[in-house]
Amino acid sequence: MQNDYTQMWTDLGLDLQAHDQLLEVLGQGYEQVFMSQANRPEGMAYFDFVMSEVHGLRIKELMDAKAEGRKVVGSFCVFVPEEIVLAVDGILVGLCTGADFATEEVDKILPRNTCALIKSAFGFKLGKVCPYLESADLIVGENTCDGKKKSYETLAGLVPALYVMDLPQTKSLRARELMQAEMKRFFHKMEEISGVTIDAARLKKGIQLVTEKRKALHRLNELRKNDPAPISGLDALLINQVQFYDDPVRFTASLNKLCDELETRVAEGKGAFAKGTPRVMVSGCPMAVPNWKLPMIIESTGAVIVGEESCVGERGTRNLVSDGEESLDELMEALVDRYFKIDCAIFTPNPERLDHVKEMTGRYNAQGVIHYSLQFCQPYQTESIPLEKSLENEKIKTLRLETDYSQEDIEQLRTRVEAFVEMIA
Amino acid sequence: MQNDYTQMWTDLGLDLQAHDQLLEVLGQGYEQVFMSQANRPEGMAYFDFVMSEVHGLRIKELMDAKAEGRKVVGSFCVFVPEEIVLAVDGILVGLCTGADFATEEVDKILPRNTCALIKSAFGFKLGKVCPYLESADLIVGENTCDGKKKSYETLAGLVPALYVMDLPQTKSLRARELMQAEMKRFFHKMEEISGVTIDAARLKKGIQLVTEKRKALHRLNELRKNDPAPISGLDALLINQVQFYDDPVRFTASLNKLCDELETRVAEGKGAFAKGTPRVMVSGCPMAVPNWKLPMIIESTGAVIVGEESCVGERGTRNLVSDGEESLDELMEALVDRYFKIDCAIFTPNPERLDHVKEMTGRYNAQGVIHYSLQFCQPYQTESIPLEKSLENEKIKTLRLETDYSQEDIEQLRTRVEAFVEMIA
Repeated sequence: MQNDYTQMWTDLGLDLQAHDQLLEVLGQGYEQVFMSQANRPEGMAYFDFVMSEVHGLRIKELMDAKAEGRKVVGSFCVFVPEEIVLAVDGILVGLCTGADFATEEVDKILPRNTCALIKSAFGFKLGKVCPYLESADLIVGENTCDGKKKSYETLAGLVPALYVMDLPQTKSLRARELMQAEMKRFFHKMEEISGVTIDAARLKKGIQLVTEKRKALHRLNELRKNDPAPISGLDALLINQVQFYDDPVRFTASLNKLCDELETRVAEGKGAFAKGTPRVMVSGCPMAVPNWKLPMIIESTGAVIVGEESCVGERGTRNLVSDGEESLDELMEALVDRYFKIDCAIFTPNPERLDHVKEMTGRYNAQGVIHYSLQFCQPYQTESIPLEKSLENEKIKTLRLETDYSQEDIEQLRTRVEAFVEMIA
Repeated sequence: MQNDYTQMWTDLGLDLQAHDQLLEVLGQGYEQVFMSQANRPEGMAYFDFVMSEVHGLRIKELMDAKAEGRKVVGSFCVFVPEEIVLAVDGILVGLCTGADFATEEVDKILPRNTCALIKSAFGFKLGKVCPYLESADLIVGENTCDGKKKSYETLAGLVPALYVMDLPQTKSLRARELMQAEMKRFFHKMEEISGVTIDAARLKKGIQLVTEKRKALHRLNELRKNDPAPISGLDALLINQVQFYDDPVRFTASLNKLCDELETRVAEGKGAFAKGTPRVMVSGCPMAVPNWKLPMIIESTGAVIVGEESCVGERGTRNLVSDGEESLDELMEALVDRYFKIDCAIFTPNPERLDHVKEMTGRYNAQGVIHYSLQFCQPYQTESIPLEKSLENEKIKTLRLETDYSQEDIEQLRTRVEAFVEMIA
């Protein structure tokens, strides 16, 4: 961290001691997991810097934006449309999760059998260590899984302003109507909290910014098809994680610059790992900062991760809002179309996700799929069993893993991943 | 069992050996739990008979009805409207669950962290021991919790005809529209499978039959207010369970006859337990036959259960379809209104349920509430924590328990229930 942010963190009501400890652990973990990698592209320096300032400079930027009257919106889910937030000059940030915190306090208000992601989000709140959550003018929840849906009722009592998006459970015509109505409601909510009236030009601008970001991520994905892969799966995951926190314009420019470098690497036959390294795809639950456990295990066993079928990965970013719409109504319809395509396991049935996993496996030339479920995540866990069956039927080797944010099962996971990588190599 | 049903069970494709074992265990359990009770009303003989023939005579009746062209519909949820099934001369039955079966087979297709109720339903199917499931012309699932919603995708591959009702997650105007549309879709599905066109008279008849049944259950509830309680909680639960299997007209008549007897008991000051016995209310997940574990523990520690806030209890039966509607549209609207009121924990927020628990506690003069969650049931588990807090704030003693269908935790549960009963007595 370059500067002293103590005053800012104090003003935000953080528990300074606990927060210092968190940053220390986070910094050490980052050093071990990321900085120890060989053959890193130079362009990763930008993302290293963002991470080093993730609770510092970036929060300072949010506070400066707030001082100018701009609104900060926090969310936990890729169903929350950043386009609409940008249309009112707002800033959308992902909220902290990905590590266990204040677990004793959390266990008093959430069932033991709640997934680690939800418990973690509550832990960051109860432990007063998430400057994103504390600086947000509005927190947007969403009725996705039972765990999140029901725990937002409790979160509502812990934060000043919680807004919950309702979401459908199927892909029926009526379900799309609900999505459409909820997009409109969110649109008006953003207008209300910002005092800005969204016209077509504003929304179009928001869509363009997000589309540019997604296109840069698609470009990154495209480059990972190569053998040797020009970038590690850990670094690619980090980029996918950083996009939830960083300024979208700066992020897009930095990622495109990195992609230029990766193109040169590809042309020169250089990679993060040697040519012929076993190629693995990861599919399943999202991995939030600093949940790098499984990718670290996979890549330390001598495989490279070439794609993530995840909300922090292609599920969250793969579809673009259709181009060429002009009126506000058309733009909103295009937005609804795009978000309604997300193949989250909360939908029933959800065959698009299976198709996507298969398609990705082919596209990235992956030799196997590792399915990652957070313990107690019923939608992804339940879907993983027929998914594995279907992949295995098509001779795609699949390993189903279930874990949480603890470090206790690392050796057990490593043993299983090693055996899997040996089998597919 | 009075007759030999071997041929019928063979025709239904049951695994006779496994089914014989099931019936033996069920019979023994019933004997121990129900027949050992003191001071039982004579009218319980009817329900004992129904239970003794639950896989025999009742299935024979279903087969006879099918031979006449009537349709048998199986369901797992109180959101499935029996009124509409009856309107096409169909028969709605609850499907088997409530006991662990074929667990090894189940663990291959459902996650370990799935609730016992869902696992059990799959166990009865995979073990080929549920004659209700095997005789059903249509099985109706519903998008309630994540566990059920996602596991129906797998069940669809195991049964010939599965139909899934979509359900909303909130009580908004738009949510009611979804409920309304889904009721209409179910209406047409019933017409389609039966070949019967539902007119106002038919629907009105269906509504009347179900209303009479619900009124008889309300009458039973009313009588349980008295001290001494004229009937045990175990017997009252059994009646609530039997209503999912039995012919509605015969059930209603038998229950009203029992209620006549209970009125006499009340007038004479007679009860199932002594006057002044500690009164407990149970709230939470449904208890399906033969899941009598917790009520048996509670009543064997010297308390009496005076009410069930459960789908197999007042949550499932408390509201009546409004009277006096005449046209088909009006009748359907009245149905939608009634089912939309169900305060299942899948809704967010769900304050009506808390209000109902409080109201029931007062109405039945209960000295404490025992909240029962099935392990891995996220909606009820998550809701139970603020519910307990709110009840305790109003000086209503509450005990939160979590269990499954195994017998291993009986002594541990007994210890906790005994301590609770001692405290409230």
